[in-house]
Order: sequence, then C-alpha cells, then structure tokens
Amino acid sequence: MAGVQQIDTLLVDAMVVTMNDAFDIFPDGAVAIRGDSIVDVGPAQDLTAKYRAAETVACGGRVVTPGLVNAHTHTPMTLLRGLASDRRLDVWLMGYMMPVEREFVSPEFCRLGAQLACAEMIRGGVTAFADMYYFEEEVARATAEAGMRGVLGETILKFPSPDADSYEDALAYTRGYIERWLGHPLIVPAVAPHAPYTATPELLRACAELALEFDVPVLTHIAETRQEVEDNRRANNMPVVPWVKKQGLLDAKVLAAHCVHLDHGEIHTFKNHGTTVVHCPTSNLKLASGIAPIAEMLAHGLTVGVGTDGPASNNNLDMFEEMHLAAILAKGATADPTVLPARQVFNMATRMGAQAMFIDHLTGALEPGKRADLAVIDLSALHNWPRFTMDADGVYAQLVYAAQSGDVTDVMCNGRWLMRDRALLTLDEAALRAAAAEVAGRIDQFLIAREGDLLSKLVAIGGLEREESFEIQVKSRLDGPERVRRLLDHPDTVVVRHSHYRQYDTYFLFGDRTQGRVRYREDNFINPPGDVPIVRSRLTFTDEGKEREFSDAIMLSRSRFIAPASHSRRFYREYFRPDCERELQKERRRWHIDYKGRRFYINVDTFILPPLPGTFLEIKSRTWSKNDAEEKAGLVSEMLNILGVDRAQLFHEEYVNFAQDERADAPAEGG
Amino acid sequence: MAGVQQIDTLLVDAMVVTMNDAFDIFPDGAVAIRGDSIVDVGPAQDLTAKYRAAETVACGGRVVTPGLVNAHTHTPMTLLRGLASDRRLDVWLMGYMMPVEREFVSPEFCRLGAQLACAEMIRGGVTAFADMYYFEEEVARATAEAGMRGVLGETILKFPSPDADSYEDALAYTRGYIERWLGHPLIVPAVAPHAPYTATPELLRACAELALEFDVPVLTHIAETRQEVEDNRRANNMPVVPWVKKQGLLDAKVLAAHCVHLDHGEIHTFKNHGTTVVHCPTSNLKLASGIAPIAEMLAHGLTVGVGTDGPASNNNLDMFEEMHLAAILAKGATADPTVLPARQVFNMATRMGAQAMFIDHLTGALEPGKRADLAVIDLSALHNWPRFTMDADGVYAQLVYAAQSGDVTDVMCNGRWLMRDRALLTLDEAALRAAAAEVAGRIDQFLIAREGDLLSKLVAIGGLEREESFEIQVKSRLDGPERVRRLLDHPDTVVVRHSHYRQYDTYFLFGDRTQGRVRYREDNFINPPGDVPIVRSRLTFTDEGKEREFSDAIMLSRSRFIAPASHSRRFYREYFRPDCERELQKERRRWHIDYKGRRFYINVDTFILPPLPGTFLEIKSRTWSKNDAEEKAGLVSEMLNILGVDRAQLFHEEYVNFAQDERADAPAEGG
Repeated sequence: MAGVQQIDTLLVDAMVVTMNDAFDIFPDGAVAIRGDSIVDVGPAQDLTAKYRAAETVACGGRVVTPGLVNAHTHTPMTLLRGLASDRRLDVWLMGYMMPVEREFVSPEFCRLGAQLACAEMIRGGVTAFADMYYFEEEVARATAEAGMRGVLGETILKFPSPDADSYEDALAYTRGYIERWLGHPLIVPAVAPHAPYTATPELLRACAELALEFDVPVLTHIAETRQEVEDNRRANNMPVVPWVKKQGLLDAKVLAAHCVHLDHGEIHTFKNHGTTVVHCPTSNLKLASGIAPIAEMLAHGLTVGVGTDGPASNNNLDMFEEMHLAAILAKGATADPTVLPARQVFNMATRMGAQAMFIDHLTGALEPGKRADLAVIDLSALHNWPRFTMDADGVYAQLVYAAQSGDVTDVMCNGRWLMRDRALLTLDEAALRAAAAEVAGRIDQFLIAREGDLLSKLVAIGGLEREESFEIQVKSRLDGPERVRRLLDHPDTVVVRHSHYRQYDTYFLFGDRTQGRVRYREDNFINPPGDVPIVRSRLTFTDEGKEREFSDAIMLSRSRFIAPASHSRRFYREYFRPDCERELQKERRRWHIDYKGRRFYINVDTFILPPLPGTFLEIKSRTWSKNDAEEKAGLVSEMLNILGVDRAQLFHEEYVNFAQDERADAPAEGG
Repeated sequence: MAGVQQIDTLLVDAMVVTMNDAFDIFPDGAVAIRGDSIVDVGPAQDLTAKYRAAETVACGGRVVTPGLVNAHTHTPMTLLRGLASDRRLDVWLMGYMMPVEREFVSPEFCRLGAQLACAEMIRGGVTAFADMYYFEEEVARATAEAGMRGVLGETILKFPSPDADSYEDALAYTRGYIERWLGHPLIVPAVAPHAPYTATPELLRACAELALEFDVPVLTHIAETRQEVEDNRRANNMPVVPWVKKQGLLDAKVLAAHCVHLDHGEIHTFKNHGTTVVHCPTSNLKLASGIAPIAEMLAHGLTVGVGTDGPASNNNLDMFEEMHLAAILAKGATADPTVLPARQVFNMATRMGAQAMFIDHLTGALEPGKRADLAVIDLSALHNWPRFTMDADGVYAQLVYAAQSGDVTDVMCNGRWLMRDRALLTLDEAALRAAAAEVAGRIDQFLIAREGDLLSKLVAIGGLEREESFEIQVKSRLDGPERVRRLLDHPDTVVVRHSHYRQYDTYFLFGDRTQGRVRYREDNFINPPGDVPIVRSRLTFTDEGKEREFSDAIMLSRSRFIAPASHSRRFYREYFRPDCERELQKERRRWHIDYKGRRFYINVDTFILPPLPGTFLEIKSRTWSKNDAEEKAGLVSEMLNILGVDRAQLFHEEYVNFAQDERADAPAEGG
C-alpha cells in the first residue's frame, strides 16, 4: 500500500465542523491525528484511503468540533460556587468572597479548585482556558496534569493578596513562575494585573515590562462596571482604556475581560494595539454590570472570545450556556435578531477565542498543523431533535441554541483523550468531589461561626467600600499647636489643603474584641462666617491590631471598610447592639501636605470630650507597597524631627482608649 | 399499628423544597402520596412513622421540588426546531414558519409535535404547561396520554389558519373542544386569540364570551414587540392593554405572554383585572423583542410565570435555562443584582406559574391536597459541586444558577410516574425520534425545492409584511366616468377621502406560474398646483388564483405580501431576473367611501399604457371573516346597481393581462 501513511488516530463517521478560514464542514468527515497534532481533515472516504491508523474511532454520526475555548475564568473559585448569590457586588465581594479567600486560599485550595474546574470543563467540551487567580503555578500544575491547555495568569494587586503581601512580591512570584513554565507544551504562563482600579501606574508598568520581557500575555479586567469607569474619569480625567494605555500596558499582548463600558474611542485604541477582549455575558448580567457592546466591537474588527468568568459569579463553567447567551443577548441589546449569528458565536468560542488568548497557532480549529484539541458532541438528544439539513449552517444553530454541555461525549486535547463516552480519563471525579465537599464543609463552618458578627452585619446593610489597605501613621502629644508651622513652612513641604472641623465619634465596641469595632463619625466643618455649614457622616469598620511597627512608634495599620452613614446614629446603635459605646469629640485642624513630593495628612487635635489637656498630633499617609511604606516611615521620622517632637511623647494607643464608657452596665474594655 | 395510614408512595431520603406559603424546606424530608394527590409533606422521620406505603422510594439525597410549570409554549413547533435562526422576525415568520405551517400542519403533525415536546419537557422536570397552537384537541390528546397537565388553547386568528378558514370556524372548533374536555383531570381547555394585532374587536369579544361561558382561561400574546405597540397606538390611539380591555377581553381569566412593552398604567390595569403574565426571556432576546419589565411587574403584585415559548424561537423547552436567564436578565436590565433572587424565580417557575395558568388549586407546590406533580433533581453533578449549607436558600441558587435539565432524574404527574432514572415511561422516545426525523426530512425537501423561488427571494431582502388576508373585489368597464357620481352622491354613501394619481406598474412574471408574481408600483400623486409631488413605491407579491367567486364576478382574493420598495426598479429586475416583464400605466381616481357604514375603495382608471379606450371601474374592500365577506359581496352588488353597471361589462381578468410583454425573447404568459 504505497503512499498510505501511518497515523495514531482516525476519527470517522463524524460531521466535522472545522472552523478553518473557509468554515468547511464535512458531513461525512474524518480527522487524522499523529502525536499531538492534526495531520489531515476532510471527507472520510479520502482519509480512510490515505491513512492507516493505530486506532480508528467511529463517531456514530456525532459532530466533531474544535475543543471549546473558555477565555476568562478563575478556576479555584469553583470551590466557592454559589456561596452567596443575589447580593450586591460589594457585599458579595467584601462580605463573602474576600473574607473566605483570606481564610481559605492556599496552594492546596487552588490546586483542588483548578482540578474540579478542569473536570467540569472537560465534561463541557472545553480544551483551553484563560485563568487568573492566586498561586497560579498550582493551577498550571493541575491543568497540565489534567491534560488541558491554559493561558494562566498570576493575579497582581496593589493590596495584599492570599499569596503576596505586596505587588513586588506578586511580581517576583510571577517571574519565577514564568521562568519555570515558559515553553511548556500545554501551559502559557501570563501576567495578570487584576484591574486598573486595583493597580497603581507603577504596578501596570511593571506588569507590562515583565510580559514583554518573556513575550507572554497580560490578562486583566477592564471597564467591568459603570462605577469603575466613573471613578477612573474622576480620578484621572479620562476613560479606563486611555489610562491603562498611558501606563504602557497595551504595549504587551493584552486580553481584556468584560469591557462592558467601552466607548468608540476605546474600541479603536484596542484595535490599534491588538488588544483582545473576552465577553462574559452571564457574569455581567448576574452581577448587574451591564451588556458589553460586542456587535460593535466585532464590526470594528476586534478579536472577541467568550468566557464563563469564575464559577462564583456564574455559577458554572458551561460554555454552551455562555455561547447561547452571547448570541441572544446581542440581539436583544441591539434590537436586531441578525447580529451575532450562531456561526459567528461558535467561532468566538473556538478559533477567535484562541486568537484572543494568543494561542491560535496551536488551537481553535481542526486543520493540519494545529494541535489535536477537539470535542465530540451528540446533537441527537431530544432537546435538539429533529435536525434539518437544508441550511448548511444549521449545525451552528444546533450547537449554539439547543445543545447542552451534557451532549459532549468525548474530548481530546493535544492528541490525548481526556474523556471517552462521558468518562473522565485524567481526573478522579469521585476523589475530587469528596475533597471539595470537605473544603465546602469547612467554609460552611467558618461562615456559620461568623454569622451575627460585625462585618457580616455591616455588609448586610450595603454600601460598604474597601478603603485603601495600608496606612502609615504616628501619634504624639504636641507641646504648643503653633509648633506645626515648623513643618508647614519647611522648604520641603507644600500645603495642598487645609480644613477645620469639629469631629464627633461614637465607637461601638464588643465583648469579643476579635470582631473589630465600628465607628460612627460626624464631621462638622467650621467655615468662614457666611458659609453654609457642611456635615459629613461615615461608618468605619476597623480590625484590631497592626500589620507592622516601624521605629519611632510609626505604625502600618490594616485595611478597613468604610461606608457612608446613610442612617442615624440611633439606627446603628439599635442595629449593632454594641456591648459598650464610647464617645469622643475633638476639634481638628487638618492639612494635606506634600513632603518631599509624597502626600501626608497632618491632624492637630484638641479634645472636648473627654476634656483632655493639651494638643495631639497625627501624621498619616496611605500606602500600597512595602517599599513605599518603608520609605514613608523614614519621611515621617524626618517630619517628627522638624516638629521637634520629643520621642517620649509618642504613643501607640488609639484615641478611643481615652474615652469613657457611656453605659455603666456595659463591660469595660480592657487595655 | 393503630393510626398508621396506608398510602401509595412515600418519597424519602430527599431534600424537599415545598414552595408552600412559608417556603418550607425539609432537608431530610419525605412526601406521602395517595392516588393522584399529596397527603403529607414533612420530615422523613415523622412521615415514616405515620404512613405505610405500597412503594417507598429512596431519593438518595436528591432534591424533590414541585414539577416545573412552563407557562407559554407552542408544542407542535418542536417539529420546526432550529429551522431558521438569526433571521428578522418577519423573514422568519413569513418566509419560513408560515409557508411551512401552511404546507405541513395537520392533526398528525400537531399530535407528533406535542408528543415530542412532552418527552423533552418531562426530561427537564416540567409537569404542566400552557400551549397555543392549531388542532389543539390533538395536543390535548397527546398531553393526556403522556400524563402531563396542560392548559391548552386553540389559536384563533382573523385570517385563515391551518385548521380554520375564518375566525368563526376557529371559534366553533374551540367550543366543541372545550365541551369535550371540560373537567378532564389533566387538561384545561382554553381559548387563544393569537394577539391583538391578528384579531378584530369582534374576534376578541367573541373569545372573551366563549371563555366566560365555560369559565376557561384565555391565552394570548400581548405587547411582544415595539412595532406592535406603535402600530396599535397609530391605529387605535392607545396602548395595547387599554385596547384589549375595551374589547372586554380582560373580563375573562387572561394569561398574557411576553408583555415586553407594557407601561405603568397597563401593569395597573392587569393588576386590577387579575390578568397574569408569562415571561419568555429567551424568545424575547433571540427575536430581539426586548426585555420585559418583570421586576416592576412583580413589585406591583402581578402574577408572573416563566415560559420557553415555542422551540422554533428558543430553540428548546428547557425551563432551567429559562429560570437562569430570567434571574440574571432582570439584574442586568435594572442594574440591581438583588432583584429576582433565585427563590423568587424558582417560585415563578412553580407555584406562581401555576397561579398564572389559573391551576394553582391543583399544582405548583408540594402540600397536602395538591396533585402529586413533582420532579426529583440530582444537584450533585460536577457543574453543581460543592454545596454549601450555611444559607438555607442556597438550594434555590443551585437550582436556578447551576442546575441543568439533564439533572432531573424522576418526574411524577398526578400521582403517576412519567420518568424513572431518566427513562421515559409514557412515551416511546425512539419511535418519536424516528417519526420526527421523517417529518423533518419532508420539510427539508419542501424548502430545498423552494430555494430560488420568488417568496424566498422576497423575504431574503427583508421588510416583507403580510397584508390583510382577504380582499373582496369586482372589476368592470364603466361607460362614462361621470357615472361614478351616482354612487358618490347616493344617500347611503359617505366619501371619506379622494386622491388622484398616475400609477406605473411593472409586473415581473415567471415561467413557473405557481410561483406567483411580483409587482413594482409607483404612485405619483397629482396634487393641486403648488403642492409638492408625492411619489410612493411598493413591491407586492401575489399568489395565483382566487379563494372564491361570488355572483356578479365578485372575487374573494387570497392574502398577499407587501414591502415598501426601498430599491430601484432596476435593482428588482436584476435581483428577480423575471422570465418576462409587463408594464402598465394608468391615471387613477380613488375614493375611500363608507357605503351603509362599511368601508370600500372605488377606483376609476384610464389606461395610458397600453392606451386602452374607455374607463375602468374597481370596487374593493378588505375583509376578515366569512360572514363579512358575504355581506360585502351583497353590498357590492347593490353598488353595481346604483352605478347602472351592465353585468356584461364585468370581467374576471387582472389588468396585467392587458399589458404587452416588454421583452420579445420572453415566453408569453398564457390566459
């Protein structure tokens, strides 16, 4: 048999949907595979004559497509699936996801969650996905072992995360991870700055440089919510995309998730920079973020993939559900039922998704030279019956509008079978389920124990915001308030703003001090005569304890949550039912200054209640990074010298400890 | 064992989600069933002590819920699933659905389609549904045999339908159907006027009266598209709901599907009349109809169910998909992730759905006295794992956000098992699939044969509208145009409007006359001096033949399709490539008159091309009903008498036959 070539696997008796440039479909088709790659695709008759296969697989008339491409997810969050639904984003994130992540996210958690996600995705015909989470090297290990293809990005934040105390630490972790995995046949390591609003300009620049150095993609979230866009415009006087472009981020190969609120100019900027987009319609609707202008993006030539987002906000990893929604949502949003037809959406979930992830040289289509990544799908289930042949593109409508993930029967990735006849071959489903149930049980216990605690009560009433994470601060008695002028008039100081107000604080304290405490604060501004008085009230939740203490009693304090106080003090008293309550009143003069180009807040306080003698000084500054905190601690020391502060006057205590308990029957707070 | 009661079936080892008034959930629960009804629901421990069951079913920790309620569908259209996707509504409806329905819809078609739909719905946990189609008695028979519960409405239209030549015929059919099925344990017959825009006031009134006479529900479509609302406002100077209320429709128990474009006042009107609503989010998005204001409706106390709509516009009957979309779409549409929480949506798909269908005394909740309609659902699949217990309502989130129809393992309706361990017990799935494939094959052949035909080409260019179906018309030579004054000045005549224009007609004719023909018409209005000339051009598709001929050569002609001619005559010539082409030019004076209170059009024409001698008269009137057509034929005879028309001058021919073929090489049209 001269000219007959030896191959490993020949799929026959299949309708082969190639997703190649010509969108070829072979109704009685075959796929020839050797090693990890496809060597031929075409009519079964031709291929059976041309090849001798070690294994010939008869597909029983089923459809063979490229493996689906899930272009945005957070696989370890599979372990948090359905944990808290129907909540506002801040409540969901601050009240549930972040506290649980702080407590539970570990390398083992990420590995198990990724394995569970891989199992679910293989069942649903997915062979490649883009992921962003913590301990991403564990995700890479789990994905490679499961035999799937991944573009896997380590998440980098300006505040501490479960696997990094600072963004410098996260970058160092990412560099090591990239160096170890670059060139892996299945895994493409990536850099994943979480989002513009959780980054600083330096952080974005550093991420872009790292990605460019190794030619790996950048994964990030862009313009997911209207709030993000408005905040960015307020802070930086421009939309989100020009701002990240300004930081050099778009010089890298960027895959931007969500992009719900992009304007025309931003779409053009993405086009010009080759930035690609992932559409996550389920997550965008479920979290009420909005509807991304996908039809417009496609019309302008953007490369748009489809993603499920994490299972905590979806609540599954079902690309069939996602394709279906992408197709019908665009029609509803544009009032045009012809936009995003089924073929285009199936393309977004395969070939274009691979382009979006910058791996289309490897996967996304069934054509010679590509890796053998494919799904076998049974389109003859009752919910997909009968079938019409008169329209050649009818198979795309079947795949997008009626098929379900449960219709996938077999999956191959990189030439290796991951599922045969609905049985997983690379993962132990029973063991994974048991391990996941054990983790879920511990999370259940943690949350049940937390029930009734302060933060949950706070988040329950909504509007909670995470304040900047770290604050450098020092407190001292100040002999003579006029002494502050030494600092204000110093040549290294520029006074930015000055305000003067009376401050009324009510602290709600609890027997269980680990719960933290709540402060209700009213600021009454003391204005020049004739001005309208301004009153501002806020609710602050403070954890106990400090992160770190520098020399000179300079503290690095932990993150806090702040909410505008939309209710009365009486409401909060009744709502929180504190074990004891303390009041402070003081007159505060506050200066925002730049000292050696860094922003500090100088508070000079006189106490009215309790009527403490003397004057008190506070120097504070917000910080995001370890280096920055160390540097600022040094600057604070310098300022203490300029002010001539006697180091013996410094103190570690919070002002609240000066106050008297308002209620005689309440237990006294120790310390 | 005194006090132990004998029952038929006891479900144990189940999490029972009752959907009763208190939303009770029994984590280790049981359901006791005797005959067709539930006798008890509660903790398994209590019920096992209280009852002795002929059959005890251990549910293995699965969830038992009320059977799902699909409150709007068109079951026989299962046989048209996915036939034409991503088309504009008019193209989809006029170009594909209606031609295929005209050709294929028969009692056998409806029976088979309903059986296939029942099989799919049982697999997806549905036990009750509301249906609107033709030959609805066949749907009732199929549903009862499948053991499902249905509120099944016979569709009534103002134009001919596959099972009725007129609305009077449809009403007569419906009356017989109701009389035969009223009181059936599973089936509630219903009256289903299709929609306001396919009804006349008399039709709606007659439907309401019929429904009230037998106390059965009315099923209809309301305010599905913006076009419908705008058209109604233009025609009747009010929104859709006040208009149907004016016709007395809301005096009946009305279940209104879609309601995408309701205003506040209309929501209040529904509330006041106890009108209920079905939300069909997939269909509304897929057909680009819009997003119904469901959160607002619920806030105003409307009863809202969830429906899949027909599988031709969905493309399946999956209530899990529908619940999921209803929940997330409302959040996206209102920018509030807390609206339509999972429990509320699951309620809409069970108890509230039953209320919407006016059968909540029978089904929708698991509580004593209700019929035993239930689904057993396995929530432990990978895509729904792990599970958290800390939130009691977490099971609703699992059901709505992560579960799939394939997770349903067992279904009971009216105390009878319809599915056990995913095997259907009342329907022969293999036989149904084979029969459906055979019908699909014939539809395929019909459509393939039609490829390249006129109507498909017409619909392909869009904008096609169905004109009023029936036209009464008579043609005659008129000796002296002044003779028309006899009619215009007659005491029984009121002249409503007069216009005068030159009319340029181009007919595109085809060798295969069964294809019909296309007329391109330009009307150039001849106005008083100084006025701006108005030109109007239209494209009309005419079927061959007439429906019926009355005495005096008065014709009843068939329905037509009309499109505004947005392209040039040259474009259409090149596009349609007719076998021959004919031109007519005439000067037309047209009067809209009311004769004895009925509207007629009087055309008095003089031909320019060909230059025929004399004057021609046409009397026309649109009609919707058999009775109306007969009555109008009588009035036309009277008018012919008033005009003194010599009956010998009457003729049956179309004007086009006077014209000469423009192209010498084209085959001459016979006749």
